[in-house]
Amino acid sequence: MASSTTSEEDNRVDVLVIGAGPAGLMCANALAAANVNVRIVDQRPSKVAAGQADGIQPRTIEVLQSYGLAERLIREGNQMHMCAFYNPNAKGVLERTGRAPDVTAPTARYPFEITLHQGAIENIFLDSMDALHVRVERPIVPSSIELARDQAELQDASSHPVRVTLSYVEGPDSPARTEVVRAKYVIGADGAHSWVRKSFGITMDGEQTDYVWGVVDMVPDTNFPDIRNRTAIHSTNGSCMIIPREGDVVRLYVQLSDKDVIDPASGRIDKSRMSPEKLLEVARKTFYPYTLNTPKEFHWWTIYIIGQRVASRFSVNERVFIAGDACHTHSPKAGQGMNASMNDTHNLAWKLVHVLRGWADVSLLKTYELERRKYAQDLINFDKEFSALFSGKPKTLDNLDGVSHEQFLKAFQTFGGFTSGIGVHYTPSAVVNVTHQPCAPNLIIGQRMLPQIFVRAADARPYEIQDLLPADTRFKLLLFVGLTTESQLAKISALAEELEKQDSFLQKYARDGNVSSVFDILTITAGKKDDVNFLDLPALFRPHWSKVLIDDTDVTGSVGGHAYDRFGIDTGAVTLVVVRPDGYVGMIAPSTAIRDIEKYFAGFMRPCAA
Amino acid sequence: MASSTTSEEDNRVDVLVIGAGPAGLMCANALAAANVNVRIVDQRPSKVAAGQADGIQPRTIEVLQSYGLAERLIREGNQMHMCAFYNPNAKGVLERTGRAPDVTAPTARYPFEITLHQGAIENIFLDSMDALHVRVERPIVPSSIELARDQAELQDASSHPVRVTLSYVEGPDSPARTEVVRAKYVIGADGAHSWVRKSFGITMDGEQTDYVWGVVDMVPDTNFPDIRNRTAIHSTNGSCMIIPREGDVVRLYVQLSDKDVIDPASGRIDKSRMSPEKLLEVARKTFYPYTLNTPKEFHWWTIYIIGQRVASRFSVNERVFIAGDACHTHSPKAGQGMNASMNDTHNLAWKLVHVLRGWADVSLLKTYELERRKYAQDLINFDKEFSALFSGKPKTLDNLDGVSHEQFLKAFQTFGGFTSGIGVHYTPSAVVNVTHQPCAPNLIIGQRMLPQIFVRAADARPYEIQDLLPADTRFKLLLFVGLTTESQLAKISALAEELEKQDSFLQKYARDGNVSSVFDILTITAGKKDDVNFLDLPALFRPHWSKVLIDDTDVTGSVGGHAYDRFGIDTGAVTLVVVRPDGYVGMIAPSTAIRDIEKYFAGFMRPCAA
Repeated sequence: MASSTTSEEDNRVDVLVIGAGPAGLMCANALAAANVNVRIVDQRPSKVAAGQADGIQPRTIEVLQSYGLAERLIREGNQMHMCAFYNPNAKGVLERTGRAPDVTAPTARYPFEITLHQGAIENIFLDSMDALHVRVERPIVPSSIELARDQAELQDASSHPVRVTLSYVEGPDSPARTEVVRAKYVIGADGAHSWVRKSFGITMDGEQTDYVWGVVDMVPDTNFPDIRNRTAIHSTNGSCMIIPREGDVVRLYVQLSDKDVIDPASGRIDKSRMSPEKLLEVARKTFYPYTLNTPKEFHWWTIYIIGQRVASRFSVNERVFIAGDACHTHSPKAGQGMNASMNDTHNLAWKLVHVLRGWADVSLLKTYELERRKYAQDLINFDKEFSALFSGKPKTLDNLDGVSHEQFLKAFQTFGGFTSGIGVHYTPSAVVNVTHQPCAPNLIIGQRMLPQIFVRAADARPYEIQDLLPADTRFKLLLFVGLTTESQLAKISALAEELEKQDSFLQKYARDGNVSSVFDILTITAGKKDDVNFLDLPALFRPHWSKVLIDDTDVTGSVGGHAYDRFGIDTGAVTLVVVRPDGYVGMIAPSTAIRDIEKYFAGFMRPCAA
Repeated sequence: MASSTTSEEDNRVDVLVIGAGPAGLMCANALAAANVNVRIVDQRPSKVAAGQADGIQPRTIEVLQSYGLAERLIREGNQMHMCAFYNPNAKGVLERTGRAPDVTAPTARYPFEITLHQGAIENIFLDSMDALHVRVERPIVPSSIELARDQAELQDASSHPVRVTLSYVEGPDSPARTEVVRAKYVIGADGAHSWVRKSFGITMDGEQTDYVWGVVDMVPDTNFPDIRNRTAIHSTNGSCMIIPREGDVVRLYVQLSDKDVIDPASGRIDKSRMSPEKLLEVARKTFYPYTLNTPKEFHWWTIYIIGQRVASRFSVNERVFIAGDACHTHSPKAGQGMNASMNDTHNLAWKLVHVLRGWADVSLLKTYELERRKYAQDLINFDKEFSALFSGKPKTLDNLDGVSHEQFLKAFQTFGGFTSGIGVHYTPSAVVNVTHQPCAPNLIIGQRMLPQIFVRAADARPYEIQDLLPADTRFKLLLFVGLTTESQLAKISALAEELEKQDSFLQKYARDGNVSSVFDILTITAGKKDDVNFLDLPALFRPHWSKVLIDDTDVTGSVGGHAYDRFGIDTGAVTLVVVRPDGYVGMIAPSTAIRDIEKYFAGFMRPCAA
């Protein structure tokens, strides 16, 4: 029989993504949308059908919206708007001690979380990728990975220094075979037991807790009034978290004790000691005096021990990256896992695109680990506190040291910015420059661009600014030009002249002489709809009639307005806000400091060769 | 050669729709969604590609939303939020005399109009129908239509008294042939020159005006600042209406003089005397001193004389109906045509479904002409006033009797409720009963259910009530149960007991013992989220956990609340609001007048035979 291994020369790819979970799919979809030559492989023979991670945070909905994918997610998913808290009363009987909005971050554009099973979320990406002609290849098991050691090769942007052997499992119509792929970049998005991570000996730092939990999905039969709210039950019989899901499905996280699930001989978790019926039995005690009858069927269940660990590094020479569960593990109840994973590769994808296109220096890729490792560490720290509070016994007359409702609620609200994803704050780096933060003190550099409704100057249509900042790999330049008085218009024209010059950053980094290839310019005036004529602005600042916005209300007076005030931007100045392709504010500067913006881009961009 | 005419016996259909424009497509889609056996034929060999009608009113957007079709319309279309008015100043020079919201109806859920070319709008229906396995058969020309004269046959709901011969045009793969179809009902949605209408000798009553207009679609090259707003220009050189469209396209309606277009020999319009270049030349004079350069291409153009006519009747024995342009013609500039057409068949479709299913008596069909003919007449009356104002010369120092800006603006705003479609008000009939209007004085019986946001009791998710009133052929019963105090809960339970009885209207008209087959019950409480437990309500009033709503704000406090106040409903009473399947309020009554609701339904519904 002839060898079925294809010759290496034929199998070059710019990016190989290993693992088609949320991190891998976000990555492959973003790269495909940017026309990158990408392949994605997965060892599972088919898609996830039920269970697994299922909570989407407000910030992640914003991110999906930036890829045009939020509409379907919102249509298919369940929304959690309210939280409820149940604790024992003075007599030890369980009762509702309070309710609160599920999302406490005041700037969240979507003030709710979405729950939907992981398979449905993955389908949104798969269908999007399908339209871009990228499909997950499966089942494929990677069997070897090697990275070139030659520094010249590693530094050469055009080289393919990663060599991966892929093993195709024997199928009904195809023999088992292997294929060698040479990639410029490899993304290991292959989960908590990441083969890519282990192949490079990257360790997971942190520890395992003693908290053992069970999870079960079902359509509940209960008289519990908050069964469709995200509910934290702290009872004397243990803790339980209710997560309502799409349709009538509800997920219960049930606290277990070691004796329920640990094999005394090995000291390890033994899933065979548990069953969904037993999980329900435990939950039933927690719910008491509310009833929780046995449902017709259980959709999915599992048990787990909470581990809190972060990978010691996120990349090998910025040629192999790990992302998602491969680099951080933590408890699922705070609904962080899938969100952290998708946001990892959302952060990485545009940087890869810029480097692959020759727009940016390879050093840009270092900011991936810088930004996402700090976030992962923050996540672990949060998770430790939250898990301890949640797994702790409630405060009662018999247990005065227990966790009180007030204590839990306070923690819940304190962590709100974090758990919503809204609070993610990248520290200064090549792509985050805080020098001129005082120009717009309330628009925090390093955080995502705040949602804000403006009206379009030409037709008074209200637009959410985030919808004008798609994840299309371009930097967005928001020109807050203030009130368009005559003197201000003179200032604006001078700026336009400056930026028309061949040595300005706009021209220097643009490709093919086309500013809009790399920079999308949006001009935002202060003032009222009737006083602004978009034709008064220099042509450079209105490349299309749709690109001029006004900080005013819509015609009904119900949305928009007050952004200058809210951001703290002077209407008598001209202020530039640089929004990165991933929606995060990279830099803000007054027009008088245009040289600093040039320096910012010079720090990681490469001038056009032409 | 054997005869290619198929035997008549084989070609029975419940409803045959003739004409696949907006009226025909709305009809066929609604019937297909209700699983009615429907066919739709059109004489055009292919879909409309450009031009023709293109404005969708706020109310029509609501209607499309009730079929699940608004999302795509909104995504693809242009939105008109603002109107501008230009008139000559004291020196006779054109200037902007004011701006106003394009939609003045304060209760519009969508406070804008959508413009999109007719082909794109038709595609939304075609794709929806495709998923329901109904396709437009074309090109097919109907060549004869006969209606049985036998009264018994006409009265027999199961008969097929309409006989239509369809002629198939010869195609590359198919010979010319004819087919005879026997239908229970035929809908003539075949346009202003309706063959169905003429076949039955139905006359068009009304007159033709002297106003001649041209229309041209293009991407304009202009320095006119309101080119992306709906703009009415009254200049001394004539009138012009600007309608911005999808993408960068703009439509201009240009007033013409007889000499430009009338053939002096025949006295009739002669399109060959006009061209898009000539239209632009006329428009250019109207725009002066603003420039209007010749664009790269013209997308579409035509000329027309405004005619204002209504068909003398809308049906023949309630077996053949005409709808849309077949029964009313008027000027296009107020953007009414396509809207009136779609709303005609939206009104008719559910009535046909109820009769075909045996739920309702055939007499229900008489309300179609009653409701839509009055509307058409109102439309003509409006159009006469509006066209005269719009085609009139502006008021200037030389022409003090001309139309002033104030006069035009006042008319524009007075007609706002009408032109938005929001003001449509069906008069009392079998399906509109105003007896108990004082129970909810501000929720007008005969008008569409007002948009209003409520929060769902089980999970605090805010819902627009209109989204809970889909056009699914069911009557919606909104039970405003007030504050759920103990005494009120007793009253509610008593009502539930009453309605559980076999002789109550709920049970009598339900099919297969299933109340929700015909009636969708939504219970709306007053009070605050934290005080309402949906499990306190009788099971009949919460057939699913999603069916109980609260008149409170959402968790962020930004939407919802105050509906009882707004509608004028007493929180100490139990008030039933019957919303028809087309979204119009059919009746309101207090729970103490349940017999009147029974009488309402007895007036057109048939009790279940079982």
